[in-house]
Amino acid sequence: MTDGRLIAIEDPGDFRIAEFRDIRERDMTGREGRFIAEGTVVLRLLAEAHVSQRGFVAEKVLLLRNRVAGLEEIIAAFPEDVPVYVADAAVLDGIVGFHLHRGVLAIGRRIAEDDVDALLGALPEHALVLVGCGISNHDNVGSMFRNAAAFGADALLLDETSCDPLYRKALRVSVGSVLTMPYRRQGAAVDILRALADGGFAIWSLSPRGQTDIRKIAPSKRVAFVVGTEGEGLPEAILSAFGSARISQAPGLDSLNVATATGIALFELASAMRRI
Amino acid sequence: MTDGRLIAIEDPGDFRIAEFRDIRERDMTGREGRFIAEGTVVLRLLAEAHVSQRGFVAEKVLLLRNRVAGLEEIIAAFPEDVPVYVADAAVLDGIVGFHLHRGVLAIGRRIAEDDVDALLGALPEHALVLVGCGISNHDNVGSMFRNAAAFGADALLLDETSCDPLYRKALRVSVGSVLTMPYRRQGAAVDILRALADGGFAIWSLSPRGQTDIRKIAPSKRVAFVVGTEGEGLPEAILSAFGSARISQAPGLDSLNVATATGIALFELASAMRRI
Repeated sequence: MTDGRLIAIEDPGDFRIAEFRDIRERDMTGREGRFIAEGTVVLRLLAEAHVSQRGFVAEKVLLLRNRVAGLEEIIAAFPEDVPVYVADAAVLDGIVGFHLHRGVLAIGRRIAEDDVDALLGALPEHALVLVGCGISNHDNVGSMFRNAAAFGADALLLDETSCDPLYRKALRVSVGSVLTMPYRRQGAAVDILRALADGGFAIWSLSPRGQTDIRKIAPSKRVAFVVGTEGEGLPEAILSAFGSARISQAPGLDSLNVATATGIALFELASAMRRI
Repeated sequence: MTDGRLIAIEDPGDFRIAEFRDIRERDMTGREGRFIAEGTVVLRLLAEAHVSQRGFVAEKVLLLRNRVAGLEEIIAAFPEDVPVYVADAAVLDGIVGFHLHRGVLAIGRRIAEDDVDALLGALPEHALVLVGCGISNHDNVGSMFRNAAAFGADALLLDETSCDPLYRKALRVSVGSVLTMPYRRQGAAVDILRALADGGFAIWSLSPRGQTDIRKIAPSKRVAFVVGTEGEGLPEAILSAFGSARISQAPGLDSLNVATATGIALFELASAMRRI
């Protein structure tokens, strides 16, 4: 039973749940690595990450009272020192500033991470890595994580100009994959790619003008796949320094969006590498 | 020059542009087939559809004054009886109810369409059709159109429980493909599939539990590919009556979202059918 550890919140102004106030208006990312986790799936993955000490901890949980019954197993997975607050719908809506019909929230915190080189050094001999450069759209970053997880990528690297995947919407769109997929967001794109090349990765970037059909990329032991900003695409310096791939489509059209293009490319690469 | 036909709007309350007021709060779809077109690409496609009498007409255009210079060719493509209004940023923001940085809007209208059977009857001998059942998310419907266009599908059919692709956000996410891809949104899913089967289509539905790997579907002259609601997936009656396909992925994960799954499936089918 979880009743013993539930802490009732009666007042939206209660200081114990201040981090949840008006969550739509602001985003806590960057404040000492804290982030908002929403929804049952993300909460469960946060509990797993917390317990296994896999890069993230939970600081507090806030639930709609009538959701508790269906979440007892997940609640029990959090250690006793993670407070679990419950509130009725009117109080919860007053806290977050809009009607939150799902009613499952938590504050998580990213714990210290090592650098890109350490992450790369820990990758297996056969590895598939997704790289994002200048991905500023939260949906696209979230989708990249979801797709990377779906097709068994080993890591995801974002350059410093890409948005933080712990933003509320990116994390939600990733269906929590940000908490399970090893990733780093640091450094310039060219430095990331140089480190990958030094690590023996075949580097392929995606572009409507790519020279190699994505269906014809020769499989390698280690592949890094690079996607850039929708619209502008990837800088010419990246396109020309490494292999470039295209997704064949009907002529005369706008390119696919980043999320779909990444999904198709990862599906093809994971197929060629016999990972799926 | 377009100066001669531009009509200046100085007052956000001007009745001539009343359809554009507070567009975020409401959606005109269903009101006699009217819809809001946003952005340069969609405006150009609306002009093309209007001129070629391809299912849609433009009723009026509303532009941010400083956007006019870059849009002269598109403006000139609309017949003279389509009024083109221009407004300064403050007036435009007052009309639409938020800061519209793109500054390109139009009211379009769908003209009478025939039924599904007529659309199917007009399809070529070799055909690829995408079918959506219960797709209520505007982003997903828009993405389905974008992907269908990207991979050269001949038509898109939505059952009556799917949302209208002319909703503002669906049309925007489709990057205007709703105006170029032949489609119908009518009838029950089972009736649509029966009509397709009668038309000689091999019918494949997508499901995480699908029996055939999407990479191994035998090509047919005519293929209809069916996707259902995210989460619930497709009804068992549809899965069992026809072929079901799966997109192979890493074990133990949430399924791909509808947009990405549709993109991957269409890419595979269009490849197998040697269309791309």
